[in-house]
Amino acid sequence: MPSTPATLALHPDRLLPVDPTVRSIARRLYEAVRELPIISPHGHVDPRILLDDVPFADPAQLFVSPDHYVTRLLHASGVPLEALGVGQGLLSEPAAREAWRLLCSHWSAYRGTPVRYWLESELVDIFGVSVRPSAATADAIYDQIAGRLTQSDYRPRALFDRFKISVLATTDDPCDDLSVHAALVADPTWTGRVVPTFRPDRYLEPFAAGWIEAVQRLGEVSGIDTGSYTGWVSAMEDRRRYFISHGATATDHSHADAGTAPLESEEAERIYRSALAGTVTSDEATALRRHMVLEMARMSTEDGLTMAMHIGVRRGHHGPTSARFGADTGHDLPLRGDFTDPLRPLLERFGTHPRLKLVLFSLDETAFSRDIAPLAGFYPSVYVGAPWWFFDAPDGVRRWRTAVTETVGFSRTSGFIDDTRAFCSIPARHDMSRRLDSGHLAQLVAEHRLDEDDATEAAIDLVSGRPQEVFQL
Amino acid sequence: MPSTPATLALHPDRLLPVDPTVRSIARRLYEAVRELPIISPHGHVDPRILLDDVPFADPAQLFVSPDHYVTRLLHASGVPLEALGVGQGLLSEPAAREAWRLLCSHWSAYRGTPVRYWLESELVDIFGVSVRPSAATADAIYDQIAGRLTQSDYRPRALFDRFKISVLATTDDPCDDLSVHAALVADPTWTGRVVPTFRPDRYLEPFAAGWIEAVQRLGEVSGIDTGSYTGWVSAMEDRRRYFISHGATATDHSHADAGTAPLESEEAERIYRSALAGTVTSDEATALRRHMVLEMARMSTEDGLTMAMHIGVRRGHHGPTSARFGADTGHDLPLRGDFTDPLRPLLERFGTHPRLKLVLFSLDETAFSRDIAPLAGFYPSVYVGAPWWFFDAPDGVRRWRTAVTETVGFSRTSGFIDDTRAFCSIPARHDMSRRLDSGHLAQLVAEHRLDEDDATEAAIDLVSGRPQEVFQL
Amino acid sequence: MPSTPATLALHPDRLLPVDPTVRSIARRLYEAVRELPIISPHGHVDPRILLDDVPFADPAQLFVSPDHYVTRLLHASGVPLEALGVGQGLLSEPAAREAWRLLCSHWSAYRGTPVRYWLESELVDIFGVSVRPSAATADAIYDQIAGRLTQSDYRPRALFDRFKISVLATTDDPCDDLSVHAALVADPTWTGRVVPTFRPDRYLEPFAAGWIEAVQRLGEVSGIDTGSYTGWVSAMEDRRRYFISHGATATDHSHADAGTAPLESEEAERIYRSALAGTVTSDEATALRRHMVLEMARMSTEDGLTMAMHIGVRRGHHGPTSARFGADTGHDLPLRGDFTDPLRPLLERFGTHPRLKLVLFSLDETAFSRDIAPLAGFYPSVYVGAPWWFFDAPDGVRRWRTAVTETVGFSRTSGFIDDTRAFCSIPARHDMSRRLDSGHLAQLVAEHRLDEDDATEAAIDLVSGRPQEVFQL
Repeated sequence: MPSTPATLALHPDRLLPVDPTVRSIARRLYEAVRELPIISPHGHVDPRILLDDVPFADPAQLFVSPDHYVTRLLHASGVPLEALGVGQGLLSEPAAREAWRLLCSHWSAYRGTPVRYWLESELVDIFGVSVRPSAATADAIYDQIAGRLTQSDYRPRALFDRFKISVLATTDDPCDDLSVHAALVADPTWTGRVVPTFRPDRYLEPFAAGWIEAVQRLGEVSGIDTGSYTGWVSAMEDRRRYFISHGATATDHSHADAGTAPLESEEAERIYRSALAGTVTSDEATALRRHMVLEMARMSTEDGLTMAMHIGVRRGHHGPTSARFGADTGHDLPLRGDFTDPLRPLLERFGTHPRLKLVLFSLDETAFSRDIAPLAGFYPSVYVGAPWWFFDAPDGVRRWRTAVTETVGFSRTSGFIDDTRAFCSIPARHDMSRRLDSGHLAQLVAEHRLDEDDATEAAIDLVSGRPQEVFQL
Repeated sequence: MPSTPATLALHPDRLLPVDPTVRSIARRLYEAVRELPIISPHGHVDPRILLDDVPFADPAQLFVSPDHYVTRLLHASGVPLEALGVGQGLLSEPAAREAWRLLCSHWSAYRGTPVRYWLESELVDIFGVSVRPSAATADAIYDQIAGRLTQSDYRPRALFDRFKISVLATTDDPCDDLSVHAALVADPTWTGRVVPTFRPDRYLEPFAAGWIEAVQRLGEVSGIDTGSYTGWVSAMEDRRRYFISHGATATDHSHADAGTAPLESEEAERIYRSALAGTVTSDEATALRRHMVLEMARMSTEDGLTMAMHIGVRRGHHGPTSARFGADTGHDLPLRGDFTDPLRPLLERFGTHPRLKLVLFSLDETAFSRDIAPLAGFYPSVYVGAPWWFFDAPDGVRRWRTAVTETVGFSRTSGFIDDTRAFCSIPARHDMSRRLDSGHLAQLVAEHRLDEDDATEAAIDLVSGRPQEVFQL
Repeated sequence: MPSTPATLALHPDRLLPVDPTVRSIARRLYEAVRELPIISPHGHVDPRILLDDVPFADPAQLFVSPDHYVTRLLHASGVPLEALGVGQGLLSEPAAREAWRLLCSHWSAYRGTPVRYWLESELVDIFGVSVRPSAATADAIYDQIAGRLTQSDYRPRALFDRFKISVLATTDDPCDDLSVHAALVADPTWTGRVVPTFRPDRYLEPFAAGWIEAVQRLGEVSGIDTGSYTGWVSAMEDRRRYFISHGATATDHSHADAGTAPLESEEAERIYRSALAGTVTSDEATALRRHMVLEMARMSTEDGLTMAMHIGVRRGHHGPTSARFGADTGHDLPLRGDFTDPLRPLLERFGTHPRLKLVLFSLDETAFSRDIAPLAGFYPSVYVGAPWWFFDAPDGVRRWRTAVTETVGFSRTSGFIDDTRAFCSIPARHDMSRRLDSGHLAQLVAEHRLDEDDATEAAIDLVSGRPQEVFQL
């Protein structure tokens, strides 16, 4: 440790290409998009923070405990999750301070990661921090942030305005009454736009724990008997209508694979009832889920909700950690992802339907060039989802853009998706995407593959036109 | 739209590396190869256009309707294939003009794609177009091209000469009588070289529609009874001899997987007869196909035809489009590709045979570094096929070259393959490859991994020596 | 061939990034690590060369015959392995000279490969060669090297010192008595450090030829009856203790897949006995191996040996070559590699155990970003193994570093592993790694993603801290 701590600052050219020719083009492209409003079509921010507008608690509970992007590398570095406040509800001031210290003293573990990039952006841009986090600087930074958090400028609504978010989509359970969303809309002092997203995963996994209770509750909430598969379908349709009436424009689906396959009605009904009786096998449950996903696409052709699929996750890889700390604790891990054959039944039926919009996200980057881009390069319903999770990072984005552009150009991509539960990271994430797309386009210009006026138009379209069209926002 | 349309021009340094040091090396390497004659060992040009030498009809039928590289992105952008003249035979002038307008008005959809790069090269270099295609400029460009097409300089033979094509291989059905090829050879006014390629796929897929008729026809054409598997083998050998006598130097194979596996003679015979009787199962048919591919390799060790394998395509992904518009309409899609284990039976038998030349192409880029380069880095019969289809694009080529070079260098790669049915794109495609290889080699020189004289020798060998050796041209 | 042969020289900036800004940063980072001692945690050097310290025989037997990295591309280029002295024991001077000539006259086949890079480094740096190898220069270079080899400065111990190797780990059979290692330790004239590594693969493959004899021998050496599975476990534990008492800090495992799965004790015992009786099936043997790998991890949690896994190799792909020339003759080929699900049973049991250190290596580069980095980004026991074999090359390393850094940073990676049997290549390999990591870090600095002081600390840690921690050296 030096006696004077290292400074923390954001270089205006960060993430832009290094070559002077390319960088100067990239700067111009970036200038054309840097101040455009943020459209956030998919994320995990709790809308209640905007309704209640109470100050964030402290740096640890803002940046550390709830964010598995952050906690997983600390855990890998030997820090127990309990020391970070994971899954413990509200932290005491000493516990919060200690969690924050653990993050700062492991700052070197995040070298080269987007987590560090985002955190640095937030610390500097939002909270005015000017020293690099470390064991030595942890407390001073904690105090500085904590001080800001008590100011009205740092309450959620003020930040929402400061971030220039034009629309923010949340992720919601089909049984949610969306009262928070409704209250926001009804609040005359609130001028932002927050829309729900229909996320029915757990109702489509008949083998998973809690499914029986989930569909039972679905029946209660919808007032439709879910004791049969046809009832389940009607209840789902009902809840989608409810979501639409509250502003939803999209559904979101995340399963281990992208399989879709029709069942005969009788077979669907039989498996469904078997699942309700607790006698379903794993294979039957998978078959029913693949049929249900197909059904969801059919519903989208009718009610027009954009259908996003986030495919290929082994959730809760480490059982003991799940048991102790719950879901989303850093060990949801990528699986191989295939789309071409698994989606064929869906696409043969609905792939050219004028109302379907299907956005495909993968944690297996081999699917970008092999499956997703070629599908989106033919089917008018298919869009290439932005880099997701582990790939939402400078080099990940570059690989993704390079993998898909030559097959589908830019117009069949989704626009940036932050997919975050870390509210304060939203501007840094969107800004990162704008910088990287500017760099990618500048490279095409510098190689004389695209004229600069054309590249500027593309850059703007990626920030504004794409998410508006794809997610109907 | 600006009132003055944007210009269209080709920068002399296009696709060369941006860094000034690397670019200057790349320029010198490119100069050493830019004017070398084109060797085209595999493609889909109809030889009849060269025999008949009639003018091309119009811009739409030259650039749009027959080229699924072009139509698929228009289809993805919401343009119906029928509006592009796909699968409709000759187009009327208004229909052709409208198809052309649809392409020009969707020009932005092709940003960053090789299709746009090739089309721009063709428009400027061949037809002298100097404005960027758009809805506003579509008609003027149409008229300019249409006017040129009526001139004798723009007839196929004149272009063949202008393109400096030293040899062009076509792709032909084993039952083709090759009369067009023979007529070309016999034509004293024709001085070019066009050779056929033996492409027997449909005779090796006993489960596919039309197989029974195909092998029946094979029997008729060869005069050998194909009612038994041994008859099929003899008929195939006979047709290969026929192709060789007409100048063929290679066969080409494209199946969903690279599987090879021997069957006992009795089992091969049994499945074959079952297929003729229409009672074969899908699994049996696959087993027979894998045996037949092995047999094809055996024939190559005897008659010396180079064996090219293009692996991993789900053909006709969207059934309704196939039914209405036929094959090659933009929805043939990549599958995972494995080579190491599937080819083992073939390579254990013939991998070190001095006459076998096996060229492996993949639509799954993960196979470049994992399967194909390591195989070609040991087996003297195996060559790494050039980037194919979706990967025949600047960044695709770069990824491919980077993925394979460190394992096999340059001498075990095939040289460039255009694989195109778009005759006018041939020079642009070969030129693209030369620019990209010059850039790749220049990067090695700039990193002091290769001396420039050595790089120059490699660049020339990639254009001349490799295709001559690998395809025996 | 020019009349004056091309020169051979090593540029001081080789492999550093070309851009002047990035290169100048990279130079400074490289300067900070270039002279640090070499830690070699995994390789295949025969410790006897250091014990006996007899001069190397000749250039062919030093550089060609025993190194399948070198011979495989010659074989692919049509040179028979017998002409290279593969598997033939000591070569006569004419045979050695001819093998060397074959390498030199095929120098162009190695363009762009790391083999050429390493050989050039060795020829220049160690042996003072200053002309490029070719048919014309082969004999002169042979004589120059052969002359040096007779000098005492070129004997193995002198080179070991000159290479600044602080510790070298060998790879050893569990039944090895480690007498060479013991003799080295006991030798008062030897001051280096060479440690054994426990490599039990063949005792874990009950279906492979020789397994019965292997476990029988294991019983004899350990003095523990290996007629039962429990005996096998005890004997393994015994040999691990023996290795630890001779300085071992790690085990190494290489199987076709990373599968781990527990068997009931009775089932393990039953399969084991069936294997001893020669009646085991392939599937049973695989099941037992996956159970045994799990058992090895359990032992590591108890005795603390680091567990390295090199996954995904089809060994001896070309049977006829194996039969004639033996193992390690250039046709061990990569397979798809999956880790996330296969390792789950192991990681659920031991993944958070404080004593386990599990280092994962893959020949399928898709696993870097999809499996290995995410696993190492959560489990404190898991480290990302350095690029292995085909990927231990400039672009391979760059792709690997780029694929993993954004998910796990630098601190969860293993540090460089040379994994070589080519003793003289050790400094060139480690130097290559240092140059590439300096370049990668410099790029992050130039993009303003990392401060230079931080990058310097990371560069040093990769060379010193990582291998020391991960392999407990």
